[in-house]
Amino acid sequence: MNKQIIEYLSKYTVITKELEDIIAESTFFKNYKKGTILLSEGNLSNECFFVLKGCIRSYFFKEGEEKTIEFYTEEQVVTPANYGKSTPSKYYLECIEDTVLNVANPTIENEMFQKYPQLESLSRIIAEEIITKHQTSFTEFKTSNPEERYLHLLKTRPNIIQRAPQYQIASYLGIKPESLSRIKKRLMNKMNSSI
Amino acid sequence: MNKQIIEYLSKYTVITKELEDIIAESTFFKNYKKGTILLSEGNLSNECFFVLKGCIRSYFFKEGEEKTIEFYTEEQVVTPANYGKSTPSKYYLECIEDTVLNVANPTIENEMFQKYPQLESLSRIIAEEIITKHQTSFTEFKTSNPEERYLHLLKTRPNIIQRAPQYQIASYLGIKPESLSRIKKRLMNKMNSSI
Repeated sequence: MNKQIIEYLSKYTVITKELEDIIAESTFFKNYKKGTILLSEGNLSNECFFVLKGCIRSYFFKEGEEKTIEFYTEEQVVTPANYGKSTPSKYYLECIEDTVLNVANPTIENEMFQKYPQLESLSRIIAEEIITKHQTSFTEFKTSNPEERYLHLLKTRPNIIQRAPQYQIASYLGIKPESLSRIKKRLMNKMNSSI
Repeated sequence: MNKQIIEYLSKYTVITKELEDIIAESTFFKNYKKGTILLSEGNLSNECFFVLKGCIRSYFFKEGEEKTIEFYTEEQVVTPANYGKSTPSKYYLECIEDTVLNVANPTIENEMFQKYPQLESLSRIIAEEIITKHQTSFTEFKTSNPEERYLHLLKTRPNIIQRAPQYQIASYLGIKPESLSRIKKRLMNKMNSSI
């Protein structure tokens, strides 16, 4: 399991044996059954996660309707917006598959940063990478119509479409389930007529 | 000018006299005229900015049409997606007002981080805050209709509406200028009929 974390971090910097040992000592893994709620709206959050296997979905309710914010799969970091703060969560985190997570909390993190300052530098670099990715996704979303959004998801994260129920995908794309069905039917017809 | 940066950083941590001096020594300010292009599509980026006064807009072209991604005003950090990398920029950065910026580059940043590791820790914390803000904005956008998006902008960043031309506001909201006009007219009518 640690190997997967080391591989992920190696994309950003050279991981020394020392850092590898610190990670092995300081992190721990947990298994969660499909359907587990990791964080509820209104609750405090003292844990952040790295997905080793499985899928986490974040969602909230707007006027009684469930709205999917994000899907996190293998090798993604999940830091709740209120992580380590005294503010309640505005959303839920749910395992939509049996999931294995590496779990950290502010105490573990601070200890690791103190033992190994290079790790804090690495965290900064990763956070900046995440900002860039978010910005790209937001721009992509804002400047696309629903069909383009679906095609983009199909191209960039095809496994999400296989792993999550249709109604979750629809709200993730900011559309109604009926619109998603129509888009899929339209694309299917296009494909068939071009064969 | 430095005072403004120190005030901004003080929101996140205690700024010692030592750090204050390092910032004063290492950073520099530049004045830009309205209309200055800070970064062009296809170019490398070796500068990041902190807005002291004025407004920067990021935009790109999609099928020949200008699409506004973001507006950055006082006390916002602007780090181009390709900052310090060997990849070309996918968008433009333009000063839409006369603007005063604090300018940094990777060399300055690394020197500052080495002299004062606490600054790197601070950068991590700020980057994580930015992630949270982006996530909130994206979710808000995805789960709102155009009128709600306009009202949200009016509530959270009313000065943007005053400072940027209508066509830029419209594309920032992911809608056509005609739709924005209609929304504004509708809201005006609602207001008038409720007086």
